[in-house]
Amino acid sequence: MKEEKKLRVSAIKNGTVIDHIPAGNLFKIINILDLSSLDNTITFGSNLDSAKYGKKSIIKISNKYFDDEEINKLILVAPNARLNIIKDYKVVEKKQIKIPDKIEGIVKCVNPKCITNNEPMKTKFSVINNETVELKCHYCEKITDQDNMEIII
Amino acid sequence: MKEEKKLRVSAIKNGTVIDHIPAGNLFKIINILDLSSLDNTITFGSNLDSAKYGKKSIIKISNKYFDDEEINKLILVAPNARLNIIKDYKVVEKKQIKIPDKIEGIVKCVNPKCITNNEPMKTKFSVINNETVELKCHYCEKITDQDNMEIII
Repeated sequence: MKEEKKLRVSAIKNGTVIDHIPAGNLFKIINILDLSSLDNTITFGSNLDSAKYGKKSIIKISNKYFDDEEINKLILVAPNARLNIIKDYKVVEKKQIKIPDKIEGIVKCVNPKCITNNEPMKTKFSVINNETVELKCHYCEKITDQDNMEIII
Repeated sequence: MKEEKKLRVSAIKNGTVIDHIPAGNLFKIINILDLSSLDNTITFGSNLDSAKYGKKSIIKISNKYFDDEEINKLILVAPNARLNIIKDYKVVEKKQIKIPDKIEGIVKCVNPKCITNNEPMKTKFSVINNETVELKCHYCEKITDQDNMEIII
């Protein structure tokens, strides 16, 4: 088998590679980062085999680098993702992505009766599990987890 | 430059390649064919350079072959698409895709007053331009074109 047949999604010259996305969260990330509106060349790989995670997804975006706010949204749906910054086909930086202890905004509280869902105010959570991403609301104390998480775009 | 660096989206062993998708219609096709719900390995290329069309998108789906109804939906948003059936890394069939003269169902009529939008009945169109995909409603004679086309999923 020739080398290029083993590759699933090929190299980019300059840009960002988001690797180790949970297989089922690719389209969530496309929405959150609004990738469908970009004119950049993008390749996506969905449900790729991964030695470590069974199945994973990957996104490679040419000539695009994300800011901290975008990265914070990304972390919530892909806590184990790796962000590699590519220059001239080489990884020049591996962005350390890490869930913070506190999150303000970004996520809706799961509790429809929570004050944040009824008044024009920012949500506020403590991260009580940074592996599975469980967020405890500062106001109503209800837990929002990955399964019921709605990102405020 | 090594060979694999020139490739944008790599080969698949078995499955379907949908090539020559208009650059901006990739996500429409993902929705229409409900690709985000599949467990198959899929690679997408968005806004790739194309000698013929300027920019194009491409989808490669492992171990998946589409039926005629799915292909008919695809044609409407990607009339120049090419469907290649891949077996063991080789193209074994190039599906001729061609817009039919008449279309029933699949598309909503653009006219909110059309009887098809107010009664539980199937839409029915004549294709009056098969390059740009313009559809004339059999009932109200209004023209639905690519810009205002809504596919019934």
